[in-house]
Amino acid sequence: MLINHLTIIGVGLIGGSLARALRQAKLVGHVTGCNRNEETLKQAVDLHVIDDYSLDIAEAVKPADVVVIGTPLDTTVKLMPSIVAAMSEHAVLTDVGSAKGSVVSAARETMGDRVGQFVPGHPIAGTEQSGVSASFAELYVNHRVILTPLPETKPEAHALITEMWKAVGANVINLDVEHHDQVLAATSHLPHMLAYALVDCLAGMEEREEIFKYAAGGFADFTRIASSSPEMWHDICLANRESLLHSLATFTGHLEEIRLAIEAGDSETLLKVFKRAKQARDNFTSARKN
Amino acid sequence: MLINHLTIIGVGLIGGSLARALRQAKLVGHVTGCNRNEETLKQAVDLHVIDDYSLDIAEAVKPADVVVIGTPLDTTVKLMPSIVAAMSEHAVLTDVGSAKGSVVSAARETMGDRVGQFVPGHPIAGTEQSGVSASFAELYVNHRVILTPLPETKPEAHALITEMWKAVGANVINLDVEHHDQVLAATSHLPHMLAYALVDCLAGMEEREEIFKYAAGGFADFTRIASSSPEMWHDICLANRESLLHSLATFTGHLEEIRLAIEAGDSETLLKVFKRAKQARDNFTSARKN
Repeated sequence: MLINHLTIIGVGLIGGSLARALRQAKLVGHVTGCNRNEETLKQAVDLHVIDDYSLDIAEAVKPADVVVIGTPLDTTVKLMPSIVAAMSEHAVLTDVGSAKGSVVSAARETMGDRVGQFVPGHPIAGTEQSGVSASFAELYVNHRVILTPLPETKPEAHALITEMWKAVGANVINLDVEHHDQVLAATSHLPHMLAYALVDCLAGMEEREEIFKYAAGGFADFTRIASSSPEMWHDICLANRESLLHSLATFTGHLEEIRLAIEAGDSETLLKVFKRAKQARDNFTSARKN
Repeated sequence: MLINHLTIIGVGLIGGSLARALRQAKLVGHVTGCNRNEETLKQAVDLHVIDDYSLDIAEAVKPADVVVIGTPLDTTVKLMPSIVAAMSEHAVLTDVGSAKGSVVSAARETMGDRVGQFVPGHPIAGTEQSGVSASFAELYVNHRVILTPLPETKPEAHALITEMWKAVGANVINLDVEHHDQVLAATSHLPHMLAYALVDCLAGMEEREEIFKYAAGGFADFTRIASSSPEMWHDICLANRESLLHSLATFTGHLEEIRLAIEAGDSETLLKVFKRAKQARDNFTSARKN
């Protein structure tokens, strides 16, 4: 048994899918859930995602060997003191937040010299669906999970969480906290801002009916991520503010270069930028195929 | 037989797929191709996309009942005088350009009082592939084709081109030229600029290796259109400059609203914008399903 007692704080798509996968692989003895909403927990029991639940964080956390925080970032930061206060000395704590700086700061502040029990994590998986009813055991198969262990993180804690994610099919990668937040700002947080801004911009146009009526498949792909949870993305934006603002500024510079070239009828610049981008995108596609 | 003699100027993905579909449905008697590159034309004959070809525009166009210009926008505008000069009095001319204003201006100038023979068209279909080898008969099935007939367009010419696209499985829609260009700037041309700018921005970052390595599925979807043909998009940008600049300015305003809210930690604005965008995107998805 890899984990005797697993407690998941926030049993949704992410935490629920992890629990399902570990149970299916018979790598976990007992799973306890904890949510604000009791209906969700009852549903999770009915779906055999968790064995039992408590609405009380301390009660849920006390018996755990591993605690996974599966809540949105703001909630994670808010709940951390209650979770840490109830955790046993040998337990390992991990999270699933899409930005790591703010969670790590909260952990350092709350855990003090117990911060070695914390292994910050970020599974790069998910769908536009959310909630425990959307969870499924195969969510992590061939997906990446980034861990951002701290200098203080205990090697055995790091090894256990690495093993846990590998066991559910994920490819585990280690990055330092700051690097993670820069890379994710560029590849995920910035594209989400562009998709939200684009859809919001079109929805505000006079021709919005025709716009959405005549939009083609490429538009559907391009804007799919604008259907993601507003609350989750609100938290991510503010948690990763600095890196995201940096990425936004860089992007705006590139877009302005294109805009100026269009305005000036500057064929050379347009062709140069489009070719450079196509080359980079084609390389990305080939790299993913290998 | 719907069309006795079809001539396609520029036998690539778009023109080639149309020819394949019409031949398969036995709606065309004879197909002549005309390209700058003879190798492409030989390949098109080998693939049974066309019956014969000529490198000479006048020779290719003279016997045609319908002439389809399948070239990029700049080329369409450049070739129009030679095509029109060789067209018979009863022939119908159509094109496939993604922006209509510049082609219509060129047609008015070149055709004078023969402009009634022209039915401007825009099939909203395509893949990131290009060339006749990528063409296939089913490309247009359930895709939209927008026609932008002019006040002078002959009703029988309009009817024939409508029939042609319906026969290959497309849903035909009519819009006026200006409206088409505004709607397409918003739903297609602007998103392509954002995808090119985003990929170019990331490719220029110091962390580009990790960036492309750790990018997830959402990123792949979001940037797929940056693999489109640089030459084609160069032409579109400049042909639809005015509408595209207008869309870009509106978009930039919306992105700036988000940026300011992130900078200020303004939760209310972020949630408002993200919710509004999600609602619009979800409505778009339901509308497409119906």
